[in-house]
This record gives sequence, structure tokens and C-alpha cells, in this order.
Amino acid sequence: MSFKSTPANIVIFGGFGDLAWRKLIPAFYNLYISGYLPEKFAIYGVHYQGLPEGAYEKHMLEGVNLFSRRGKAKAAEWKKFTDHLYFFQGDFTIDETYTRLKATLDENDKKWKTRATRLLYYSVAPSFIEVISNSVSKHNIAAQREKDRIVVEKPFGTDLASAKGLNDLLNKLFYENQIYRIDHYLGKEVVQNISAFRFANYIFEPLWNSKFIDQVQISVTESVSVGTRGSYYDKSGALRDMVQNHLLQLLSLVAMECPGNYDAEDIRKQKVKVLKKVRPFTTATAIQDVVRAQYTRGEVKGKEQPGYKEETNVARNSTTETYVAMKVWIDNPRWKGVPFYLRTGKSLEKQSSVIVVQFKDSPHKIFKDDVVPNRLVISIQPEQKISLLFEGKVPGLEMKLKPLEMDFSYHDSFIEEAPEAYETLLLDALEGDATQFIRADQVETAWSIVMPILNAWSKEKGDMKKYKAGSWGPKEAEDLIKEGRIKWLMLPESSKTKTTKKK
Amino acid sequence: MSFKSTPANIVIFGGFGDLAWRKLIPAFYNLYISGYLPEKFAIYGVHYQGLPEGAYEKHMLEGVNLFSRRGKAKAAEWKKFTDHLYFFQGDFTIDETYTRLKATLDENDKKWKTRATRLLYYSVAPSFIEVISNSVSKHNIAAQREKDRIVVEKPFGTDLASAKGLNDLLNKLFYENQIYRIDHYLGKEVVQNISAFRFANYIFEPLWNSKFIDQVQISVTESVSVGTRGSYYDKSGALRDMVQNHLLQLLSLVAMECPGNYDAEDIRKQKVKVLKKVRPFTTATAIQDVVRAQYTRGEVKGKEQPGYKEETNVARNSTTETYVAMKVWIDNPRWKGVPFYLRTGKSLEKQSSVIVVQFKDSPHKIFKDDVVPNRLVISIQPEQKISLLFEGKVPGLEMKLKPLEMDFSYHDSFIEEAPEAYETLLLDALEGDATQFIRADQVETAWSIVMPILNAWSKEKGDMKKYKAGSWGPKEAEDLIKEGRIKWLMLPESSKTKTTKKK
Repeated sequence: MSFKSTPANIVIFGGFGDLAWRKLIPAFYNLYISGYLPEKFAIYGVHYQGLPEGAYEKHMLEGVNLFSRRGKAKAAEWKKFTDHLYFFQGDFTIDETYTRLKATLDENDKKWKTRATRLLYYSVAPSFIEVISNSVSKHNIAAQREKDRIVVEKPFGTDLASAKGLNDLLNKLFYENQIYRIDHYLGKEVVQNISAFRFANYIFEPLWNSKFIDQVQISVTESVSVGTRGSYYDKSGALRDMVQNHLLQLLSLVAMECPGNYDAEDIRKQKVKVLKKVRPFTTATAIQDVVRAQYTRGEVKGKEQPGYKEETNVARNSTTETYVAMKVWIDNPRWKGVPFYLRTGKSLEKQSSVIVVQFKDSPHKIFKDDVVPNRLVISIQPEQKISLLFEGKVPGLEMKLKPLEMDFSYHDSFIEEAPEAYETLLLDALEGDATQFIRADQVETAWSIVMPILNAWSKEKGDMKKYKAGSWGPKEAEDLIKEGRIKWLMLPESSKTKTTKKK
Repeated sequence: MSFKSTPANIVIFGGFGDLAWRKLIPAFYNLYISGYLPEKFAIYGVHYQGLPEGAYEKHMLEGVNLFSRRGKAKAAEWKKFTDHLYFFQGDFTIDETYTRLKATLDENDKKWKTRATRLLYYSVAPSFIEVISNSVSKHNIAAQREKDRIVVEKPFGTDLASAKGLNDLLNKLFYENQIYRIDHYLGKEVVQNISAFRFANYIFEPLWNSKFIDQVQISVTESVSVGTRGSYYDKSGALRDMVQNHLLQLLSLVAMECPGNYDAEDIRKQKVKVLKKVRPFTTATAIQDVVRAQYTRGEVKGKEQPGYKEETNVARNSTTETYVAMKVWIDNPRWKGVPFYLRTGKSLEKQSSVIVVQFKDSPHKIFKDDVVPNRLVISIQPEQKISLLFEGKVPGLEMKLKPLEMDFSYHDSFIEEAPEAYETLLLDALEGDATQFIRADQVETAWSIVMPILNAWSKEKGDMKKYKAGSWGPKEAEDLIKEGRIKWLMLPESSKTKTTKKK
């Protein structure tokens, strides 16, 4: 029986919250109208307060209309969807909620004449995870190992100890293969693109090592400031909020060995394996190889931007970093001597996510102006694009070389629209495909990498640098990468200027 | 003293002929108006018959207006150019012509107060080469080894013996470094592009061998028929007219080792070296691995096309091939086991020159629809373009791969216009750069490769196959390549159909 014909009971704890409104319901709705959901399914939005009749559906429709990539919902389709969508009033902290919830789900199973898949989505503050998990377990709501899945939103802890605590709790009550830790940021599309590019194209494999690669740069830059998220962010910072999860995820995708099979276990095994080979930071290297910084007053995209310490709900003497640049080494044969430079920050000049694989320079040059080594750029934002920088001859009477760009843009080339990250991830969870979700040991390994840095900082080691909002970050981040002879690189726009015309 | 300030005496034997009219004078004129010619120069168009005053300049202006890539000449510029352009009546077969010619060139040297460079261009039927060469030598017109150059047009013989005879004659009278055998077909632009691409991009070198390359295809297809060239072509055929020179040139560019330096001697040494490693054909392999064919009546680009044997000045029982497809092996470590498939023909569906480097399939596949190995396509005609076929993920909820094309088009990317082949080659000859000209041993090695095939055919071994004008060639050529598992490939247009939109 394929997943599509398998009925599904979906429960969203925090079903009236911001995430459900902006992301989850629009994603389920799009999956529904695209025909990806089973014929028999029900979604329960669990919320502690009661709502007037129809208020839930109305609010959720507003969310779809505002945030769905497909624009406004068609009335008839929305009407059909709401036949499957239920508001479920219930306090997370009392047993009665779970008794009633279980009865409701069992009732559906009876009506559908099969034990349906159960997807329980924790769209709640981390402090509620324990009580919900204990109650779900106690009431046997997710007792079937192969059919029942729990989706947990990040953050997965705030340090190694709390992450371990969270994993211990979940693993005590459920099997690890029931836990779907979701990090929507990468989304399945991008992740699978990188894997497809690396492992379905044989010609890159022989080049993908320290013999041919000079360095790798991973940049995830944000132009947005902390904005209204000050109270959360000031307790977190760029290292916890971005490096520990997103950037180390991208690093593991670029650096991992080819899995034996393209399945959840093999892929996650290889990811953890390479993360475990990241050279541990010492207090000395945490200071020397990691730059932390805060933005100061400036201008982003023509708009005035207050400094970080002036933001709402941020401590005036805050020591939380809004920018991190760091150099990472991977101690295995493939990556011996190849630095990975990571950077991320808020209130920067541009929003972008780019992986740059800089190849080594030719050991034997026969052209005097052969000066630019090859470079592969995998761009995720603002545009999904893969480009290869190579040198070619400028048309004309002389033998003159120029760096040129061979590129492939997903947007220009496909009619198909990329689905929202949540659409693919929710569907994966329904299908029981955990490939793009984070396994317990991944979370803990990633925390292990950043802990020495957090520890060094908590002892006030490593100065807090400054950068102007709207700039590309602090000067010290430029100094960090300078030893690598090239700068932080973005999309290779430079090759299309001056002597070339716009493509 | 750089070449530009070095005065030049240019003599075109056959200066009133078709080549001078269409190509040589337009090329010299374009070099002149672009400022590439020295201040002091004179061009003498030698022709056996007298012409009325002004008739020569008028005819040549017509040629420029009709054939120059820059369009019509400006009156003032043409006027200035004609101050350097002289008609020179003279019979190639009598001494008086050369006495007068030498006096004229010596007179210029005296006037310019220096011994000018002398460029003697043989734009004549092959039968005149001997008498002109003997006379030029006898009258000491090209006696300065470093300053005097002789440009010889193809064909360089009609078989190995005649090519050797021609080389022996020229090498008896002149130094080899004075002889510029010109094969304009490839032109400097394309040749240098391939060299630049291979040798300035380090990432391709590790892939450029039998470990990663499955096969190489070189196609030079023509949609034109023999047309008015029947009397020449029927004595020649596709093997002599195209394979012996153009296709083997392209093969040597793709297959050669990296030269120590980018200079004429090193490059030509490497080209000859790899040609010498081409596995000699036996009578058996000449029949088995080479397909010859003639076109029959058909339709090319919507126009009726008579069969080859119905063409003007073609023998009704002609056994001359208008199409050749063949499999070539190179017996060196780099290319062990990699077949090179060559094909060329007239009256085919499309005009194109394409080199396809087909990479091997991945030994370990983790995606079930990873079915298309990587492919590098270097297109020379109809468009100058380099593209890399890779597999990427189709946007969407499933992990579906699709062959995609990363490309670089010279036309889209450069403002600079590519100069005509003759412009670059004439300028090279004036500068004394022989890199793009054919050395004696190159000609002879290339003839050595095709001789066993010509010999087999002359013994009427190997059937003459047929193909309809306007088709892609005979069925037997498809059979030849079928064992290689893929078909004859063109530009990868296929990747942009169906699920992709036009770039």
C-alpha cells in the first residue's frame, strides 16, 4: 500500500500559532490541491483557548491567501479542504486533552477501517515538549513504531547538554526513527540538489578532494536585522541560530562521502561521519579562527538600521554576536589541508546563500594570462544557480584569456516551480522518509563542534568586533580569509562586466 | 623592432583569383583599417594577363564590399588602402616576371631604408607551385630565412607520395620555418579556443583520459553539395578533402598532450606526436571501421538536390565518396580503449562542427534515474559554444533527475567580434608565428593515416554506401557507432525540451 492511499491523522500542537498560520496549513493545503494527500485524512489544530465557530478556518484561509506560493485559495477547493481541517481546543498540560484526542483519532481509524498514519507536529515553545511528549506516550497516541511520527521544530537545545537532554527525553518515550527533527531552512530542494549534483555527476568526484580543491566558502548572509525577534535572538546569537544547524548542514553536504544508498540511514550516517572529523576547536583556535561581531547603526538597502544594542528587547550591554566568520578544518584524507570558511550574519548588504568551491591553480601554465583558477559556485539564494568559472579565449587577433562563466539557472530552465520547503518536508514525514530530517547524533555532533567556541566566549575570550549595518561584515572577517589569498566570494558577477555583454 | 613597425612586401601569386577576391584582400583590408598592418607595406597581386587601368582596384573593392565581415568599405579608407595595393602583370613561367618582381621589392627596401619582411602567397593551382618556387629561389626573392615567408594553400598533395614530393621541393629550396602551410578551415579562433579550454583549466586535465572518457565524437557536417566544384571534388572525395586535414587537426587538438610552452614548435611537436600514435589501418580495419558513402537525390533545407552522380562535372560512374564515418584508436596510455568517431559529409541535414567528449558512466549509482553520463560539447558551428551536460534534480516533491545543460555561448557573452580566419592567419604569417600553420611532418603523418584506407578503396574494397541528400548520412554510419551504445551527437538541444522552458 503506497503512502497516498494510507489514511493519515495529523495533529498540530500549537495549531493556531504563527508557524501553522504562515507555513504548515498553507503547505498542507498546497499538498492537498496538488493531489499529494491521501483521500482519507484529518488535520487537528490543537490550541489551549476556545474559538468561535468558523474562526479557525477563517484565520487559516487568511494565512493561505497571504503566504501560499500559489496565491489566493479558490473558494471551492478551500471548502473541500476544510472538510478535513478541525480546530481542537485543548490544554497541553492536562490529561483530558489527550484522552479526547486519542478517542478522536481512534474514531477515525474505525471509520476508515484501518489504523491510519499519525503525524504529531510540535509547533510549540521548547518548554512544552516535555509535557506533550510524556502525555502522548502515556496515552499511547504514538505507540506504533512504523506508523506514528513526531515532528520536532528547532531549536534542538541551546547547547550540547540541553540537546542531549531533549534527545534523551524523546528517545526514552519513542523510537529514534519516529522522531523527525525538522530544519526547514535548507529545504529538501536545495539539499537534494547538492546531493544530486555531487553524486549523479561522475566527473566531479575525482576533483572533489584536497588535491584539486584549494578552499570551500559557505556564506549565508541576511540583510534582515533581528527585528521583532530580539528577546529570542539575544539569548541565542548567530553561532547557535545559524552555524550550529544551517551552515554545518551545508558543510556536511559538501564534504560528506558518497553514501552507499540514497536513503535516510546511509545519508545521515555519512553526514555525521564527516562532522565527527571536524577538527575540535581549542580555546586558542576558537579565538584565532573565529570572528564574532555585532552590527552598529547603518543603512540597509537605503533604510536606516539601528545598531544591534539599540534593537527592541535586546540588552543594552548585550554580548550576543549577530555575525560569525570562521575557519574549519576536516581531518580526513579527502580534506587534508583544505580550509572551509563559513560566515553568516544579520543586517548585511545582501541576502544570499552561496557555496563556493575554489579549485587549485594549475601547476603548469602555458598561457601568461592564465591567472584565475576554476571555481564552482552553487548558489541557493537569491537565485538557484550552478556556475563554473573557467578561462577561455577572448575573440580577437591576440591570445588573451578571460575568466568566463558557464552557468545553469533553475529558474530559467524549468517550468516546474520549486515547492516550499515545508511542503516537501511534511510530505516526507507522511511518507516516512527521514532523509532530510536531523538524527539525534547529528544534532549532538554539531553542538560538539560549536561548544568550545561558546565556552571560550562565555569566558569573555575573543573580542566582540563591530560592523556597520548594510556592510559585508567586520574587517576582521576579511583578515581571516586573506591568508587564503582570495576574498569572500559571491556569485561571479564580475566575469560579465567590461568586455562582455549582458547574457 | 616589433612586427608592426617592420615594413612588409606582400606578393600574391594568383592575385586576381577567386581566393584573393573573396578572402585575402578583404582580410588585408580589415587588418589595415584595424591598424594591424605596418605603416610601410605594399601588396602585389600577380596575374598573367594585363588589366585596364584601375580595373584591379575596382574588382577588389567589389570583393571587399561583398565578402568582408565588416560590410562595405568606406571610400576614404579604401582610397588610402589602394595606395598600398598594386596590380602586377606577370607570367609565372618566365624569368622576366621574377626579375621585375625582385627589382620592385628591392626598390621598396631602398625607399623604406630597411630590408622589409617578404610574404609570398601561393594562391595558385598546385601545378604552378613548382615553377614559382624554383623561380623565386633562383632569383633570390625569398633568400632571408628569418624575414621571408611563403604561404602555401591546401591541398598539400593528393596522397602521401605527392605530399612528400611537394615537401621535398619546398624544403630543397627554402627552410621549413619559411613555409606556412595554411588550412584556414579551423581558423585561429577555434584552435586557440580549444587549446585555451584544455590547458588553462586545470580541472579538465585529470578527467581527460581513458579512465573518465568513454568516447570522443568529431562531426563536421555540411549541408552544401559539391555544387560547382565537381571537377575538383570528384578527384578528391571526403577523406582527402576533409578527414586528412580538418578532422585529423581537430582530433590532434583534442587528443594532444599539453605542450611545454604555447609556441609553434612545442604545439606542432605534440600534434604530430599524437597523430603518430593513431593505430594504423589495415585493409581489414579500413573496411570494417570506415564507412564511405555517396548522396543520392533528395531534399536539403526544402530545396531539391540531385544525387552526387548527377552533379555537373562528376563522372556518372563515380566512385568518389561524399561522406566518411570512421572509428580511430590512439595507442598511447592516455587514450587506451577510447574510440574516436569521426564523420563528415556533404548534402547533410545541417551545417555543423561539433566535438563531443562523452564521459564514462558512474561506477556507483545512488539514484535510480541517474542514467545519463556527463558530456562536454565544444561546438564550433553553427554557434561557438561550450556546454557541459550534467544531471540535476527536477524541482518538485520527488527526487527525479534530469540531464541539464550548463553552457557558455561566445556570441552571447562577448562584444568582441571574432576575426575572419584569414585575418588572424595572415597577421600570424606577417609576425612570423607559425603555430596555426601545418608543418611538413604533420601533413605527411596525416596522409600516412588515411593512405591504407585510400589503398583499400582503390582495390574496390569496402562498399560504397548511399544516403539521401538532406539526411544525416548512411545507415551504416549509425551501425558503426551503435556498438558505442550512444548515437552520433549534436548540440544537446534535447535537454531544453518538454519539462524545461526556453532559456
